[in-house]
Amino acid sequence: MNEFSIIEKFFNRSRPDDRLLRGVGDDAAVLRIPLGYDLLVSTDTLVNEVHFLPSWSPECIAKRALNVNISDIVAMAGLPHWISLALTLPTVDDVWLHRFSTALHQELNAHQMQLIGGDTTKGPLAISLTIHGLVEKNAALLRSGAKSGDGIYVSGALGAAALAVQRIAEGCDFKSLADKRLLQALQAPKARTDLIPVLRKFASSAIDISDGLAADLGHICKQSHCGATVQLSNVPVDREVKNALGESGNIFALTGGDDYELCFTVPAARQQAFLRYCVRYGLEMHQVGLITAQRSLDFINEQGQKVRLQNKGYQHFC
Amino acid sequence: MNEFSIIEKFFNRSRPDDRLLRGVGDDAAVLRIPLGYDLLVSTDTLVNEVHFLPSWSPECIAKRALNVNISDIVAMAGLPHWISLALTLPTVDDVWLHRFSTALHQELNAHQMQLIGGDTTKGPLAISLTIHGLVEKNAALLRSGAKSGDGIYVSGALGAAALAVQRIAEGCDFKSLADKRLLQALQAPKARTDLIPVLRKFASSAIDISDGLAADLGHICKQSHCGATVQLSNVPVDREVKNALGESGNIFALTGGDDYELCFTVPAARQQAFLRYCVRYGLEMHQVGLITAQRSLDFINEQGQKVRLQNKGYQHFC
Repeated sequence: MNEFSIIEKFFNRSRPDDRLLRGVGDDAAVLRIPLGYDLLVSTDTLVNEVHFLPSWSPECIAKRALNVNISDIVAMAGLPHWISLALTLPTVDDVWLHRFSTALHQELNAHQMQLIGGDTTKGPLAISLTIHGLVEKNAALLRSGAKSGDGIYVSGALGAAALAVQRIAEGCDFKSLADKRLLQALQAPKARTDLIPVLRKFASSAIDISDGLAADLGHICKQSHCGATVQLSNVPVDREVKNALGESGNIFALTGGDDYELCFTVPAARQQAFLRYCVRYGLEMHQVGLITAQRSLDFINEQGQKVRLQNKGYQHFC
Repeated sequence: MNEFSIIEKFFNRSRPDDRLLRGVGDDAAVLRIPLGYDLLVSTDTLVNEVHFLPSWSPECIAKRALNVNISDIVAMAGLPHWISLALTLPTVDDVWLHRFSTALHQELNAHQMQLIGGDTTKGPLAISLTIHGLVEKNAALLRSGAKSGDGIYVSGALGAAALAVQRIAEGCDFKSLADKRLLQALQAPKARTDLIPVLRKFASSAIDISDGLAADLGHICKQSHCGATVQLSNVPVDREVKNALGESGNIFALTGGDDYELCFTVPAARQQAFLRYCVRYGLEMHQVGLITAQRSLDFINEQGQKVRLQNKGYQHFC
């Protein structure tokens, strides 16, 4: 593997950016962080047969890797700008690399982002991205900002990606339209960059739902030193998950993962303004519960009973 | 694998740092880059059986991964500060994780650095680090700064790590002191942070020698739109490489890799001051040649003849 020629040929495409003094091609990239901004940094790795399957297209893998990383910056109410790519490849496959890098650059361009450096190594296929974003000084939205009485909101229906994982395990051929939609949810999540303004304006804490709402809301509670009560019937469940699982669909949606929707909290005093804002801008938001002072995370069914979740986290393919 | 508990248990140890507003534990780390500084970002991945062997200790792998990354920041004349870790593990081995994370934190502390975030995933063992450093505004030392007439310097003897790779392939038992020294050079490179002041003061360009001096000097030439003439007899060769390979030791040292010494250029007008500085501070530097206007990279033997290198780049274990 000739690392230099791979980077030169496939990944060295710069866009004008006066904050990037040096991109791909030196020992390190050089960034000038603008005055009045803090830097956000996050890393996510996608491993073959864990986070994607060998049959998935290089375009799909590239776009998924990028959106999963963008989602972390969005959950901090920041704007994503730059990525470093650590690409591990079993062999140098020019066709694969061309398709992967073209799709990655397309998706980067769509977000006005760029690749600032990275590394290609030989080994089992894996893509690790470190993403850099900017947020106005002191405006990073942390997991630790929730307070008792805050409403808990979810930005969209959950469970489709996790059901796709289950169907893959069952050997589904994904020929029906419904199954194709599930697979699309798993393969091509879209980071909710459209929600950055609403988070900035109203949210007291946020997290992206990558490990399942139950686990991710648990992180908010832990870091905010509070608890939460979630009404199971208010959890937005993907329609195919509802069709397939009926009553237990909301538990599945709560403990599935890879949704890349956002879970965030809104202070009681801001909720009316928040709801008016959502109506005005046509944003579909679902209040699933309330932050509580008592440090437990309770899921309540329609009979008003607490439900015990058997599995709070998300399992990948292996 | 429970990613949260791994991070919590092994990697979440913060040191006071008023530029790090939020470290491990949120969707992203939040950094405040101090006024008057540019940010340096670099990524390096170490893959099992490519960059290290399964028999190597977790301490050794951790320290090697960190030093390899620090070396990139040093080559930009920057100070390393923060790392993000993408750790891919086949299984959760508490003993391995304890030893790896303890060694990583020790080495981070020794450099007054800290871990700001990352990701643990299941898969074949690999460690990808993204390192962040700071450099005074406009003071990043690029590969592109060399000019015709600049002297080319190397900071230490080359070839030991590459010879260790060769001995591993030959089935060496590494019992002799000489062999142990070679293995140490490969397993435990030390980033030359001691040279940051001299680079800042005198160098016009720099690169760390990770792929072999010939290849790395080639990068300087390409990016500086110039060429270079290297006197083979001036290439500093590790003493065991000399013993083992005699006459051909300098070619081996030139095309080997993983040395993590620095190659840098010093403008003609600054060379006397530079040499005086090196004498005063006891720095062992080797002038190996000169930057030329003509865009070719020539290696000259003791008979004054150009020597053609058969292999300019470095091959890892596979």
